This record gives sequence, C-alpha cells and structure tokens, in this order.
Amino acid sequence: MSDASSATPVVGVVMGSDSDWPTMEAAAQALEEFDVPYEVGVVSAHRMAREMLEYGETAAARGLRVIIAGAGGAAHLPGMLASVTPLPVIGVPVPLRHLDGLDSLLSIVQMPAGVPVATVAVGNARNAGLLAVRILAASDPALRERMESFQRDLTEQARAKGEALRRRRRTAGFG
Amino acid sequence: MSDASSATPVVGVVMGSDSDWPTMEAAAQALEEFDVPYEVGVVSAHRMAREMLEYGETAAARGLRVIIAGAGGAAHLPGMLASVTPLPVIGVPVPLRHLDGLDSLLSIVQMPAGVPVATVAVGNARNAGLLAVRILAASDPALRERMESFQRDLTEQARAKGEALRRRRRTAGFG
Amino acid sequence: MSDASSATPVVGVVMGSDSDWPTMEAAAQALEEFDVPYEVGVVSAHRMAREMLEYGETAAARGLRVIIAGAGGAAHLPGMLASVTPLPVIGVPVPLRHLDGLDSLLSIVQMPAGVPVATVAVGNARNAGLLAVRILAASDPALRERMESFQRDLTEQARAKGEALRRRRRTAGFG
Amino acid sequence: MSDASSATPVVGVVMGSDSDWPTMEAAAQALEEFDVPYEVGVVSAHRMAREMLEYGETAAARGLRVIIAGAGGAAHLPGMLASVTPLPVIGVPVPLRHLDGLDSLLSIVQMPAGVPVATVAVGNARNAGLLAVRILAASDPALRERMESFQRDLTEQARAKGEALRRRRRTAGFG
Amino acid sequence: MSDASSATPVVGVVMGSDSDWPTMEAAAQALEEFDVPYEVGVVSAHRMAREMLEYGETAAARGLRVIIAGAGGAAHLPGMLASVTPLPVIGVPVPLRHLDGLDSLLSIVQMPAGVPVATVAVGNARNAGLLAVRILAASDPALRERMESFQRDLTEQARAKGEALRRRRRTAGFG
Amino acid sequence: MSDASSATPVVGVVMGSDSDWPTMEAAAQALEEFDVPYEVGVVSAHRMAREMLEYGETAAARGLRVIIAGAGGAAHLPGMLASVTPLPVIGVPVPLRHLDGLDSLLSIVQMPAGVPVATVAVGNARNAGLLAVRILAASDPALRERMESFQRDLTEQARAKGEALRRRRRTAGFG
Amino acid sequence: MSDASSATPVVGVVMGSDSDWPTMEAAAQALEEFDVPYEVGVVSAHRMAREMLEYGETAAARGLRVIIAGAGGAAHLPGMLASVTPLPVIGVPVPLRHLDGLDSLLSIVQMPAGVPVATVAVGNARNAGLLAVRILAASDPALRERMESFQRDLTEQARAKGEALRRRRRTAGFG
Amino acid sequence: MSDASSATPVVGVVMGSDSDWPTMEAAAQALEEFDVPYEVGVVSAHRMAREMLEYGETAAARGLRVIIAGAGGAAHLPGMLASVTPLPVIGVPVPLRHLDGLDSLLSIVQMPAGVPVATVAVGNARNAGLLAVRILAASDPALRERMESFQRDLTEQARAKGEALRRRRRTAGFG
Repeated sequence: MSDASSATPVVGVVMGSDSDWPTMEAAAQALEEFDVPYEVGVVSAHRMAREMLEYGETAAARGLRVIIAGAGGAAHLPGMLASVTPLPVIGVPVPLRHLDGLDSLLSIVQMPAGVPVATVAVGNARNAGLLAVRILAASDPALRERMESFQRDLTEQARAKGEALRRRRRTAGFG
Repeated sequence: MSDASSATPVVGVVMGSDSDWPTMEAAAQALEEFDVPYEVGVVSAHRMAREMLEYGETAAARGLRVIIAGAGGAAHLPGMLASVTPLPVIGVPVPLRHLDGLDSLLSIVQMPAGVPVATVAVGNARNAGLLAVRILAASDPALRERMESFQRDLTEQARAKGEALRRRRRTAGFG
Repeated sequence: MSDASSATPVVGVVMGSDSDWPTMEAAAQALEEFDVPYEVGVVSAHRMAREMLEYGETAAARGLRVIIAGAGGAAHLPGMLASVTPLPVIGVPVPLRHLDGLDSLLSIVQMPAGVPVATVAVGNARNAGLLAVRILAASDPALRERMESFQRDLTEQARAKGEALRRRRRTAGFG
Repeated sequence: MSDASSATPVVGVVMGSDSDWPTMEAAAQALEEFDVPYEVGVVSAHRMAREMLEYGETAAARGLRVIIAGAGGAAHLPGMLASVTPLPVIGVPVPLRHLDGLDSLLSIVQMPAGVPVATVAVGNARNAGLLAVRILAASDPALRERMESFQRDLTEQARAKGEALRRRRRTAGFG
Repeated sequence: MSDASSATPVVGVVMGSDSDWPTMEAAAQALEEFDVPYEVGVVSAHRMAREMLEYGETAAARGLRVIIAGAGGAAHLPGMLASVTPLPVIGVPVPLRHLDGLDSLLSIVQMPAGVPVATVAVGNARNAGLLAVRILAASDPALRERMESFQRDLTEQARAKGEALRRRRRTAGFG
Repeated sequence: MSDASSATPVVGVVMGSDSDWPTMEAAAQALEEFDVPYEVGVVSAHRMAREMLEYGETAAARGLRVIIAGAGGAAHLPGMLASVTPLPVIGVPVPLRHLDGLDSLLSIVQMPAGVPVATVAVGNARNAGLLAVRILAASDPALRERMESFQRDLTEQARAKGEALRRRRRTAGFG
Repeated sequence: MSDASSATPVVGVVMGSDSDWPTMEAAAQALEEFDVPYEVGVVSAHRMAREMLEYGETAAARGLRVIIAGAGGAAHLPGMLASVTPLPVIGVPVPLRHLDGLDSLLSIVQMPAGVPVATVAVGNARNAGLLAVRILAASDPALRERMESFQRDLTEQARAKGEALRRRRRTAGFG
Repeated sequence: MSDASSATPVVGVVMGSDSDWPTMEAAAQALEEFDVPYEVGVVSAHRMAREMLEYGETAAARGLRVIIAGAGGAAHLPGMLASVTPLPVIGVPVPLRHLDGLDSLLSIVQMPAGVPVATVAVGNARNAGLLAVRILAASDPALRERMESFQRDLTEQARAKGEALRRRRRTAGFG
C-alpha cells in the first residue's frame, strides 16, 4: 500500500459531528502510520440521515473496505451504517459531558443479531484505526508483517519504559 | 375523534421487531381507550433502513401527528425517525434479556441537541400511548376533557384500592 | 405565532430551583427561535408543593399547551406536574454535582403507568424546547414548516462543518 | 404504648399503590411487634396529588409522629410528603420489574438540601418500621428499652443460628 | 432547647476521618440554626473500632438522642453504630475521588433487616442535620413549630428566587 | 469458499470454558450459513495460559484470518489473544450469573491503545460470526455478495414479520 | 498439614448470617481439598458487634492465619474484621435479592487506606478458599506444590473439556 | 526482615504501563515502611505477554512470595499472573480517564473459580502494599507485631485528628 493521502481510500473515517474530531483524529493517525489510504467525513445519522445511508450503501462500491464510525450519546451512526453496508463497521464510543461514555458504548455495542458493529473502548479511536489495519491485513501479508512489526515495537517500548522506570527509581534510592 | 380502527391514523405505533409487540401492545391499547386512530408497523432501523426513513419522511404528509417507536438494546429507531420527521416522536425503551433495559433507555433518551425523542419508562408503552393522547389533546379540547376524565378515574381507582386495602387489613385484624 | 415575549404564553418553562436556569435557559432559547410565546418560573416541588400543584392544575386553563420542567437529583417536578395536568409535560434531567445526572434521569423517566413524562437527555434543555415546538407543530402547519426548515438547516450546517473539517485537514496535509 | 390496632396511630404507613403492599407489609409487622399504633393507606403522589399533600400537611395535627412511605420507579411519594410535613419521613424504595430498585432508591434518597427523606434499603420495609420505632423511642424510655431488648434478641438469634450451623456441619463430618 | 454550644449534646455528629469534615460541617450548621446542642467527633470504624462501638453503646446513656454519621467508600460507620445503639442513626454517604459516592451510598443504605440506617443523599450532610431536627421535633412541639417556620422560609426563598429570575430575564428582554 | 467442515479453517472460534458453548454456538452457526470453514476450541486464558498464547501466536501461520473469542466475568481471553496475533480478534461478552454481562463487556471492550478487540453485544455470538464474515468479505467479492444477499433476506423477513403482525391484528379486530 | 477437621484451624470462615452458608460453603470445600484445617462461624457485624470484634482481635492468638468473611448488601463484616486483626482478611461479596451483588462488592472492596480487604468475585467463595491456600502456601513449600499441582489439574481439565467439546461437535457433524 | 532496597525481593510490584506508576507508587511506599524487600517492574499483559507469563511462572522460584499487580481499563495483568503462579496475587484497579475505574475493578475482581485475585479498592495501591505485608506476616511473628504496631498508630492518629478537629471547632466558637 502506498501513500495514505493520494491513493484511493480503503477506510472511511466518519463521525456524527465535527466536535468528535479531537477524539477521532487518533484513528486517522493510526492509519497514516500504516500508510493505509483513508477518507474523513462528517456524516451525521441524526442531521444527514439520507446522506448517511447513501454513504454506507455506496461505500463498498467506492472501494472502501472498512468503515470507522465515531459518535456520542445516543450514538446511532455506527449501527445505521452497518445496516446498509456489507463492510465491517468499527464503532468508537465518543464520551460526552455526562455519563462518561457509558451511553455511547451501550448505544453502539448492543446491536441486534444480524447487524454487528465492531466496538472498541470509550474514546479509543486509535484502536479503531489499528483494528481496521488488522482487518485489511487479514488478506494482505505485507500489511500483516507491518502489524507484527508494530506489535514487536510495542513490546520494545513497554520494555524500555519499564527499564526507565526501574532506573529512575534506583537513582532516587528506592528498592 | 371517531372509531380508532377505521379512521385515518393520526398516531403511528412502530417497533424494530415483531418480538417487541408484547411490550408495545399497551401503547395501542391506550390509544384505543381514547378512540385515537392509529396504525401499527414493524419498521426496523437496522433491517429496513430505507423504509424506515421513508416511513418517517412521509409520516406527516400521510396524516400522522405523533409517532410512537419502541426498540431494544442499541435502540436506534426512535432517534432515526425523529431525525427525518418534524413530528414529535415518543420512544419506548424495550428491555431485552440482558442489562434490564438500561441500554435501550440510554440509546433512546441521550439524543444530541437538535433532534429530541420524548422518552418514557423502560417497557412502559402504555405511557407512550397516553403521552400521544396528551400531545393530540394539546390542540383538541374534547380530547383534553377525556384525558382529564381519565385522570379523575385514575384518582378514583387509587382511592378505591386504598380503601380495599384498608378493609382487607381490618378484617384480617391488623391495625 | 407572533412575538415570543408579549403574546400569551403557550409553553411554561419551569424548574425546581433558580440554580437550574443555566441548564434550562437553552429551552427558552429554542422557543425564542421559533417565536413560541412562553413563560419562565421557579416552581419547586419540594419547597412550593401547593403552588406547584396549582401551577399544573391551572396550566391548561391559562392557555399553556405544553410544560417543560427541569429538575435534578430526586427530580419530582416533572412527574408531579404531569399528575395534575392533562398537558404533555417534558422533563429535563438536570445533572447535579454527583452521579452525573443518572439520578435525575431515572427520577424523571421511570414514571408509573398512567402518568407519562416526555423525557429528554441529561442536561439537554434545548431538545426540550424543540420537542415542545414539535408538539405545537403537530396541529400548526405553519410551525411544522418552520420545524422542517430548521431541520434542513441542521443538515446544511452538518454538511458545512464536515466540509470545513475536510478542508482544514487537506491544508494540514492529511489524507 | 398500648394495643397497636385500637390506639390513635402515631405512624402512618403509606404507599403509592396497593401493589406495594406485599413489600410494605413488613413495616406494619415491625410496628405491631413493638405495639406502635399505626395506620395504613394508599396515597399515590401521581394519582392522588391533592390528597397526598393533604395527608402530609395534616399528619402532625392528626397525631402522627413519623411517616413511612414506600414507592417504586420514579418514586416521588416520600419526598413530596417530606416537603409538606415537619415530621420525619422514612422512604422505602420498592423494586419494580426493571432496574432492580436502583431507580426507586435514587428517586427517594437524592433529595435536595432542605427536605430530607430517611431512606432505607431497597425493598426493606421492615427496617423502615424499626427506624420508626427508634425515632419514637428517642423520646420514650420504655420503648427504647424494648428496642434494646429487641437488639439483644437479634444477637441471641444470630448466635443460635451460628451454633446451629456449626452443629449441623459437625454432624455432617465437616471441620 | 437552649444554646447549641453549651448545653448537653442531644445529637452526635461523627465521621470516619477528619477529611470528611468539609462535607459534614453542613450537618452541624443545620443543628446550630435550630439551636440543637450537639457534639462532633472523629470515630473511625476502621481505625478505632473499639472506641466506635463504645461511642455507640454509650450514646443513649450520655444523653444523645440521634446520631449522624458520615463516611465514604466502604462506609461502615453508620451501620456499625446503628448495630450497637437503639438510637436512630442517620448516614451521610461522603463522595470520594472515584465512583462519585455510589459506593458510599450503597454501603450505608443497604443494611440488613433488623438494623436500619436513615440514609440521606450523597454528600448532603445538611439534610442529615435537618432530619435530626425533625426526629427531635417529633416529640417537641416547640421545635416542630420552628421546623414548620423553617419550611415556610424555604417556600418564601424559593418564591423570591423565582421572582428574581423572572425580573432579571424581563430586564434582559426575554419572554 | 467450500464446505465449512472439511476445508482449512479460516476462523477460530474459541472460548474460556466449555460452559460458554451454549452462547458461542451461534457464532459457529453463522459461519456455517456462509460456508466459512472454522475450528472450535476451549482455550482458557486462566487455565491454559501457555496454550492460549500459543494458539494466538500460531493462528495466522495456521491459516486463520479471524479469531472469535468468548469469555465471561473478568474476561481476558479476547484481549490476550489480540496481544499476540496480528489477526483481528472479535470478543463476545458471555453473561454470567451476576452483573448481567456488564463485567464481561467492560473486561473485553476497554482495551488499551495498541491492542484492539472488536467487541459485540453481550451474549450475541451470532453477530461475532457475522462480523467475521464481513471481515473476510472485505477481500472476497463473492462472500461480500452473499453478505449483501443475507442482508436483503433480513430486510425481507423483517417486512414479512411486520406484515404478519398487521394481519394478525386486523383479524383480531384491532386498528 | 494434616486432617482438615481435627487439627487446629488456621483459617476462619465466617459469615454475617447463616443464610450466607450456601454461598460460603464453597470456601470450606476448597480448604478441605487442600487439607487446610479451618473453622466455620456466624459472626454478624450488625447483630454481634462485640463478638465480631473479639473474633477478629483474638484470631491471630488462637492460631488463625487467614480469615475469610462473606457478607451481603451493606457488607461490613470483612472490613470490620480487617480493622482489628493483623491477619489478611478475604472478603466474599454475597449477592442478595436486589442489585446483583454490586452493593456487596463495593461495600467490601472500597476500603480506606490502611485497612485492606482482599476481595474476590461476587459469590465466588471457592476463590476465597483458594486464595487462603495461596496465602498459606507463600510460606509452606509443600502446600505450594499442592497448589501448583492443583493448577496443573485445572489445565488438564480445561484441555479435556475442550477435547470433549470438539469430539461432541465432530460426532454431531459440525466443522 | 532487613533493608528493603538491597535484600532479595519477596514482593513483586508490577504494572501494565509506566503511566500506572503514580498510582502504584503507594504500594512500594507501604512496603518500604515495613522494610519488606520488593522489586518494581512494567510487565504489560497486552504488550509483553510472553515476558508477563514468564514473570509469573518464575516468580516463586525467584523468591517472590506475593505479587502486586496494577492495571486499568480491560485490566488483565493481575488475573493472567494469577493463572500462572501459585503465589497470592493482589490486584489494584487503576482508574483511567473514563468510567472512573469501574471497568478496571470488574476486570480484576470477577475472576472465574480456580484463579483468585485479591482485589483492593480503585486506585488504592497503598492497601495492596499493606495486604502484602499482612500476607507475609501470616507466617512471620515479628512482621505481624509491626503490623499490629502500625494499626495502633493508625488508631492514635485517628484519635489525634479527632481531637484536633474538636479543638479547632471549639476555638472557632462552635458547639
């Protein structure tokens, strides 16, 4: 896969409102890291219902292979998109001012049988991006290798941080 | 308002699945008691998205003045309908096997600014029917009088039950 | 409907305490936008029980057609008003310092059969105002047209914000 | 204090609906055990608002010294009574079919500053009765002695049950 | 009842830790307003178990007639005191850094049958003080009159605040 | 894709305990409907940690492309597998006797950044199976067509059930 | 360690009420499996406060090395015991009729700094027994070996059940 | 037991991420106070699964006798370690940005039968350290004496703080 910004997008990152962008940006960031071409859009289930359905209905034909959808409160966007596309839809529960994202989480994950949404943690759009990469990598050995390399890096970083913590503490005279 | 079954419906009672009917039936029952003509339908947000939008978009033109929508789990039907109709939409959180309706309640009530859903108690479709009557009665003095009479009856029944309880206990020799 | 401030109020916006006003103001604001005449009052269920009942009992006769009631914690105002008026009552759960509005929400929405309260999202008084407009519009074609126009504007704004987000990101060199 | 059934009631045991009686009966039972005269009534906040207020307003003058009020869901009865009487009001959260009494509990306990309700555990009307006895006993040495004796009996029973458990297990050959 | 500070205390205000004082102070304040003599103490269930039991066991003999106990988290103080005194015990759930007082509330209110704790709202120590006054007033006509006067004042203040809100808004040119 | 039972499995359906099978069976069933070859296994995170890791580490090499993992309570299996495989892992929160699956849901969905688990609704293993199909279909046009056909069937069934409901009610003489 | 029933007990298994025994029995059962001598008792925090404290205060001197305490609702027993003994105390949240053990869990686990309770899962007394064994085994190599052997058996059983599940399904003709 | 920093560690304090250190530091601090030698490490279940298992598997052989493990969100570290070591494992639920530690708590405490984790309060790592001391003290009379002395100090401090509170208030002229 080549440059993320010019190639035909294979992942759609959409959200119910532009105020969700500070949360959702991390999904785009993760896709960039893997050079996965993506597009970003505001597609409100509650303010642009027709466009939202159309977005979902045409997504596969336009070349998208995964949709990442973030929404908060009574979060209907991920589930509605999942109902009109055969693509896997990843839902990101965006936490709002009250209830700490519990409403967003339940509104996204508790889908009825027949229409799954792949839900990630409250506010964790980075994981939505990484899940999209895994899904693409399921049929792309090169991308899978990059994911494996990314996972080894995670391990290295965790180790390094652990080592740094031990050093800091030793210097500070602790056990 | 005349006979509930033959006249043009002014209330639409819809639900995401026919398995919601045992819960939603009480809404229809309440409308019958006030002779409010209504229609019943299964309009799944997740399995009939297009029809669902169309149902909402055409509701006002077809003569409906209130929509009652019941759904469970990640309950998107009431909110989606509210997004495409100018009519007041009443949401009934249908409790499913797990989480006791809390997911249904939050998915229905926590709508974003701009698109309200009038939410009633978990599983309380009767109150959805009565709320629809109140909404219609807001511009229909005769119907309002019937609502007032209904409320007086509630009072009478509560009084009578209280009296019966006191009597039963006196007979049983309690204080 | 003419000027919101001079005409006879058709919506009553009441709250349990003047400390609820910063939350409830948005309901009034929404009514202003639609030129719906309204009145505002503090009618505490717990500190002015008699006046509160009287407010509810006389509301319809005074010309009100919808009541919006906000309260927090053990929020009894919406339900108590609903018990003494045949008008539709809209409840706004005002979040207090603890429990994030969950107590307010459950105290308002979980009404017993017979006495519905049309509950909106925690702290979302704007939606209470808009729901009142929809209820009035159910019997007022001109107002309904304004609601439809309002909804088209919402769509336009959502589209514009989405477009702006895409532009900002393109400038910033993202995908 | 003499016979519970004939003397002037000093405790009022009220509930929102006669369907709360199976829960509330235990409050009456506890009062009987202490020969505290009481009265029982259905005084629905939502169906008999005026009578409910009047019940509260006249309670002290009629000789009541404590009110026990049980209600479920959006449980407004205890708080409303507390707002119109200077007497201590004890609230019993009655669990309904959904949400396991959490709604009842929060609706009763989360009262605003100025209007306390003495809340007991979900469904635990027996404790409401015993709390009423303690309140009366605070100014009645003889009744306090009976409460102390009751508490000693509780201790004895707990001890005896513990002993019985140990015996049963020893017979069964356990450690 | 005379001066609150010199007379023999009739209410004990205790808490599990001196860090609870900022919350519990409002209980003392309420008692001062009614000139109810009280004492204040730190009696940790978990750090001073013996003293705590002794405090409870001797409370009645020392002249206390009500105990107010505040505690947070796994809040055991109110319930433990209630188990060793025949006096009414009022529990104040003190909210801690996490879980917003829900743990404190459940730890205090969910007492087993036989040992009631009169629980008030999370962090609402003022109501604990007022409830103590009501309990004392149940056998003290003069104090009851003061409570009734206090309640009339609450009503006046609520009215005045409502009037002030209406005035402010009229000046600002709103409806 | 050919016969589900003989071909090399591309989906692994694993669970923490054989007692999860009644829940997880629906995932296998969904895969059968789409002739997706799969394997089933008990791979307890807590009782077979080494095998569990090995299962995850070798999954991709053995030809699996998606893993479905169900677990209940402190449900660690999906997240642990996700940490050692680059494949997409779908988590099914299995509800246990207490807490109604809320613990299972949070234990599965709230994964830290870097290690996503695609979580579906409590107890909804069927959706896990369907999500696996969507993931496979993202790079398999024929399978995607079958998914689209499946979705059209869902729509048809929903319509038919709606029609049946209307008919039943008409026969019964309702509106 | 020799016979569990005759030797001096090193673990005390106590509970607030004999009605907790059906839950707590599994703790005793686990101790039997490891031949750890134990004693069983009902020591109600709320009905036998003095004995309860004494039980805790003398536990170490009597030879106990671990205490397992089960209680439900406002569960104070584990925390109170922990406050008067230097021994590790394991708390078992016993689920009651309402709230599914959430109250029990929070009442036990949310102890203040200084007084820890080792809390296990709701209703999972077996794990309390096994945790006691692990604690004893921390200074008893032979017992630790038995724990390791027990853990290997768990692994074997999990494997066997997995194998049985695979066999059953193969016979039934599944994949 | 001698100097905590040089001797062979008997307690391992591990956490999923170095960002957990500000929470977990209090566990180390408590061990220092009792001169219990310990080690600190970052051992991420999700980023270092193999090392994590190895850490657990070799812990006993390396001389550790207790493991304290902190983690947040879908917190798998304590449970996974418990599954591969016969040592007692103490779990500290680290609160993250959302859900206030409820997810961490349930992910740690709700372990299946066979694999206990000794869970302490949300964010209360100090109690984890103190619980480790109690566990070690169960077979170390000198350490138990220190714990008893520590507990007496807690009592003294609580008393002193109570006294200080009473003095401050007396000076301020309160009751």
